[in-house]
Amino acid sequence: MVMLYFENDYSEGAHGSVLKRLIETNMEQLPGYGTDSYTDAAREKIRTACGCPDADVYLLTGGTQTNQIVISTMLDEHEGVLAAQTGHIGTHEAGAVEYTGHKVLPLPQEDGKICADALEGYLRTFFSDDNHEHMVYPGMVYISHPTEYGTLYSKGELAELSDICGQYNIPLYMDGARLGYALAAEKTDVTLKDAAEYCDVFYIGGTKVGALCGEAVVFTKENTPRHFVTKVKQRGALLAKGRLTGVQFDALFTDDLYLKIGRNAIETADALKKVFREKGYEFYLDSPTNQIFIVLDNDQMERLKKEVVFSFWEKKDDRHTVVRFATSWATKMEDVEKLAELL
Amino acid sequence: MVMLYFENDYSEGAHGSVLKRLIETNMEQLPGYGTDSYTDAAREKIRTACGCPDADVYLLTGGTQTNQIVISTMLDEHEGVLAAQTGHIGTHEAGAVEYTGHKVLPLPQEDGKICADALEGYLRTFFSDDNHEHMVYPGMVYISHPTEYGTLYSKGELAELSDICGQYNIPLYMDGARLGYALAAEKTDVTLKDAAEYCDVFYIGGTKVGALCGEAVVFTKENTPRHFVTKVKQRGALLAKGRLTGVQFDALFTDDLYLKIGRNAIETADALKKVFREKGYEFYLDSPTNQIFIVLDNDQMERLKKEVVFSFWEKKDDRHTVVRFATSWATKMEDVEKLAELL
Amino acid sequence: MVMLYFENDYSEGAHGSVLKRLIETNMEQLPGYGTDSYTDAAREKIRTACGCPDADVYLLTGGTQTNQIVISTMLDEHEGVLAAQTGHIGTHEAGAVEYTGHKVLPLPQEDGKICADALEGYLRTFFSDDNHEHMVYPGMVYISHPTEYGTLYSKGELAELSDICGQYNIPLYMDGARLGYALAAEKTDVTLKDAAEYCDVFYIGGTKVGALCGEAVVFTKENTPRHFVTKVKQRGALLAKGRLTGVQFDALFTDDLYLKIGRNAIETADALKKVFREKGYEFYLDSPTNQIFIVLDNDQMERLKKEVVFSFWEKKDDRHTVVRFATSWATKMEDVEKLAELL
Amino acid sequence: MVMLYFENDYSEGAHGSVLKRLIETNMEQLPGYGTDSYTDAAREKIRTACGCPDADVYLLTGGTQTNQIVISTMLDEHEGVLAAQTGHIGTHEAGAVEYTGHKVLPLPQEDGKICADALEGYLRTFFSDDNHEHMVYPGMVYISHPTEYGTLYSKGELAELSDICGQYNIPLYMDGARLGYALAAEKTDVTLKDAAEYCDVFYIGGTKVGALCGEAVVFTKENTPRHFVTKVKQRGALLAKGRLTGVQFDALFTDDLYLKIGRNAIETADALKKVFREKGYEFYLDSPTNQIFIVLDNDQMERLKKEVVFSFWEKKDDRHTVVRFATSWATKMEDVEKLAELL
Repeated sequence: MVMLYFENDYSEGAHGSVLKRLIETNMEQLPGYGTDSYTDAAREKIRTACGCPDADVYLLTGGTQTNQIVISTMLDEHEGVLAAQTGHIGTHEAGAVEYTGHKVLPLPQEDGKICADALEGYLRTFFSDDNHEHMVYPGMVYISHPTEYGTLYSKGELAELSDICGQYNIPLYMDGARLGYALAAEKTDVTLKDAAEYCDVFYIGGTKVGALCGEAVVFTKENTPRHFVTKVKQRGALLAKGRLTGVQFDALFTDDLYLKIGRNAIETADALKKVFREKGYEFYLDSPTNQIFIVLDNDQMERLKKEVVFSFWEKKDDRHTVVRFATSWATKMEDVEKLAELL
Repeated sequence: MVMLYFENDYSEGAHGSVLKRLIETNMEQLPGYGTDSYTDAAREKIRTACGCPDADVYLLTGGTQTNQIVISTMLDEHEGVLAAQTGHIGTHEAGAVEYTGHKVLPLPQEDGKICADALEGYLRTFFSDDNHEHMVYPGMVYISHPTEYGTLYSKGELAELSDICGQYNIPLYMDGARLGYALAAEKTDVTLKDAAEYCDVFYIGGTKVGALCGEAVVFTKENTPRHFVTKVKQRGALLAKGRLTGVQFDALFTDDLYLKIGRNAIETADALKKVFREKGYEFYLDSPTNQIFIVLDNDQMERLKKEVVFSFWEKKDDRHTVVRFATSWATKMEDVEKLAELL
Repeated sequence: MVMLYFENDYSEGAHGSVLKRLIETNMEQLPGYGTDSYTDAAREKIRTACGCPDADVYLLTGGTQTNQIVISTMLDEHEGVLAAQTGHIGTHEAGAVEYTGHKVLPLPQEDGKICADALEGYLRTFFSDDNHEHMVYPGMVYISHPTEYGTLYSKGELAELSDICGQYNIPLYMDGARLGYALAAEKTDVTLKDAAEYCDVFYIGGTKVGALCGEAVVFTKENTPRHFVTKVKQRGALLAKGRLTGVQFDALFTDDLYLKIGRNAIETADALKKVFREKGYEFYLDSPTNQIFIVLDNDQMERLKKEVVFSFWEKKDDRHTVVRFATSWATKMEDVEKLAELL
Repeated sequence: MVMLYFENDYSEGAHGSVLKRLIETNMEQLPGYGTDSYTDAAREKIRTACGCPDADVYLLTGGTQTNQIVISTMLDEHEGVLAAQTGHIGTHEAGAVEYTGHKVLPLPQEDGKICADALEGYLRTFFSDDNHEHMVYPGMVYISHPTEYGTLYSKGELAELSDICGQYNIPLYMDGARLGYALAAEKTDVTLKDAAEYCDVFYIGGTKVGALCGEAVVFTKENTPRHFVTKVKQRGALLAKGRLTGVQFDALFTDDLYLKIGRNAIETADALKKVFREKGYEFYLDSPTNQIFIVLDNDQMERLKKEVVFSFWEKKDDRHTVVRFATSWATKMEDVEKLAELL
């Protein structure tokens, strides 16, 4: 029996148009290490899409790698990175940030988000503490957008965080592993240009949004760490065949593909949410993007597991569990309908 | 005007008997790097005092250094160290553990202590989480005794923590920066031998208990990391003149000096607590050792600051502050009396 | 004008059969992080090809990353890795090994190779030095095969190195970035099974031998570092879409493709060497694989640069330069012929 | 039988005047972490002695620690440190620099020294190499003065090295573990002020020149790394009782004590060299400071070992060994005479 697959947003290979470009360019002879023309083109198209002609764009392979590299190259040695307690870097990246010598400083979260007051309070308290010379300095703010719970910052919230960071002279960094789904959400008022305006650095996720692999880091404020390429190499992350990510991002940023393919995830997620709502399922929280968190009775969960692949999130109580259903650029509406029948 | 000094327990140099031995041995020609006869003698005396003839003892210079070295040499690379949220390694050591690549995993605390249930729950939850391969493994438990709040574990509590660590096969590590004051406390039922029995590794603090510098790490279970001396050297912590710590610990463990000098701190602290209690001051928490946490009205605090040196701990509310008064092996009862007059 | 391309062996995308498998499997829904069926199949096929049914195989993305991860997870903290002075890890990997805290200990080299005597002498001298506790312990031997100069170890030489490593109980690690070209060389007596027998760990290079990206690490002696997957994640190197490397290595190890495609590189290199030899060019050294090192007169070099892409290797003297011509699985014999006309 | 001790220059405790100050100040109540008045005074006296009123001075505990901290806080992440192949950081510090993520880049040496031509050649070659983005950047030059062979740079040589560093905008760092003996050497033309002028940072060794422990780092060009104290703490090297090093350096820089006590080492070394010369011993090299390198016949060496403690340096051939005799501030002329009788 074929299982219905709602486990995550990286279960298929590449979007058709991305794969097509890989095939077309496959036998071209190109220089290595990201100096090829496709990488150049991708960088230029991303700059344009961000409305940020001076942005510096680098292509890396995966999300944890990108977080590790951006954070470790931008922080000074005595600094740590502030993140929501639920932030991916603090929970599911196996200590990749600490591996580079830096502490992840946890902030309280609400639906996966940092609120401006909590951030401002932390920074004010830190710098007014007489002992702060003996403590880890907060040197960067990490947010994910969408968050690990699929929630989104509003433009106003981003502006506030950006403002506080500016006051304390520390960069605001956005983990955009699923940025495509944030940009395609119905009610968001945050565009790619806003991300570029409010963040000092962010990345545009490819792995979860139509690429085989690849994340595009955008330094927006002429703030690229010195000799960044060497530092990437030093961390084992410089692809010899930089074309692999170059061609893919070139395709993703041609004819607004990146923005378009996000919509399928949103539409299928919305359809699925409607089903859950109509059938009276309990939502763990309300998420506007492609991740749906539902509280299931454990028996129900076991039954469903036989025909559907989804993710365990956390135990709610002895009889209930929070689970996650994820859609993606590749999810078919007919699979949503099949799932509906099983619910 | 001379200030009354209750700021900390490291404001004087060395205890008289310790200094005397440094003077007496000063011109002896001794080999370096901890291979001298005084270091040997100190190691042997510590083994005896711990009732642990097979223990392996190493002398280091300071507390943060010791925590950094013990933790980083005992953890495997993918592991972090569990500690109470208020644990020194997670708060006031400038990220020294993270500097070595390891995460400090915070546990809830009560009066600075970890409770067995919280620890057991954390470990059980971690290993039953399907995603734990993507998370930092808990590889060690760190406790401080006395804690940062001057509180103490009971023998029963230590036994429980030790038991849980045993079940999960991770070492229990005790930061004994102020161990001398724990051992001298009135109502404690924990002896040095108990520390050696329940902990896989711990250190006996010298800097805060009568030495100019120095901490003695005790590996109690034939569990010294391979080539420990080279790893200490690699971390910049191997003293050429190992005699400096060797002679001091030899003195501290001659005629029970270490246990004796802790008592002065306890006696002066008890006298001071009596004064605070009689004068109706609010205790922030009840501590049985040499640190006293008092809630002061801010005006009162400012007044007192003119004649007494003590430590800011934290803001309680807009009008009150938690402050710390510390006694030590060197505190004079007459200074307690002088302070009493000012309260 | 189209340039002739002999710059390196990673200038094209993937070999046709590899690309085909990526296309065929693209829309299959597969679990992440290397737990998919293609990765499993690739691992099994590699074990078979190595004649090592108990080998543990992991797929990583690139060469520097692989060296960094293998070396840093196998070494104890106080250990460094021995390598020929010309070894890639010591020269052109931007200090990726040192980034993980370990020293690369240089050994004298001959045509890029370590000789057994030099290795044995180093180890004997080290352990008989009274000060070795203050020095970096040699904890692993790194060799590349082919070396950076395209040269090869004989089976006898590998056996000798392996034997010495065994005596000193340190692993022998082979960097096989171009292993396919070593195995396909005319006169080599080293098979993949020999590599698996003599090395404690080695990797089979994909990036330079027909894959878009990917290297397969083979632990041959039940010696995989504990929790290796978590350590890979911690170093930012665990691909979410593990299928990307899984499918490629599955293809490379189906119908002996890996061994076959090496031959094209050797045949075109041999043809090119014949041309150089006939035209009287000076060989910098004699290499049996796909890299050809030629001494060019500087004027000649400048002229050739206008129509051919090749690599600068090093200045020989004021008037001559050593340059490298590389062939690969993708090199066309007609390009060799075109180049011949220009020489 | 009492052995004659010429093994090293750290076999006694502290110089009498240094110890006296420790005793006198022992019971003073002082703030911690280097904020005490003695540390302040020491810093000021060192600034004056260096003729460098803007210098920033920090007191650390030992030589390896100091090298590790200075190098790791001044280098950018992609940079390594250039040092003579015989430099202490590359040989006898257990990889302490690599532990912090940085490579030690070896330069050829002559009698332990780097020559300006070799340095300039290295830097020029590096930056003109097209592949240097894939290599470790040279980010600092490390020299020791005296070197590990007791040899000295002349003022002219320092000026040349300083000049080259200036051209390439990388700091020149002097390891002055035995600086007192360099300054006291007969024929040197390098003063402490010269060291401060030509070096961007250097340290004044205490451990080997009359202190129980302690090294004074001097940043001479308003180039102290940001938040240096926190970085020192993070590396486990901030003494709680900073007075320990503060009082000692205050004493060493009172009444020119540091410069004076170096002379005893030089005078006793000169007397000893005279004996060796007169008795026809072979000098391994000619050293103007307190370390004497002699080639001994192995039988002779074994005989001497029964009554004298000296250091093995290296095997010369099957029948001869290079050994080191060291004098210090504490060496008595009568011990030189006793040794003379045994030679």
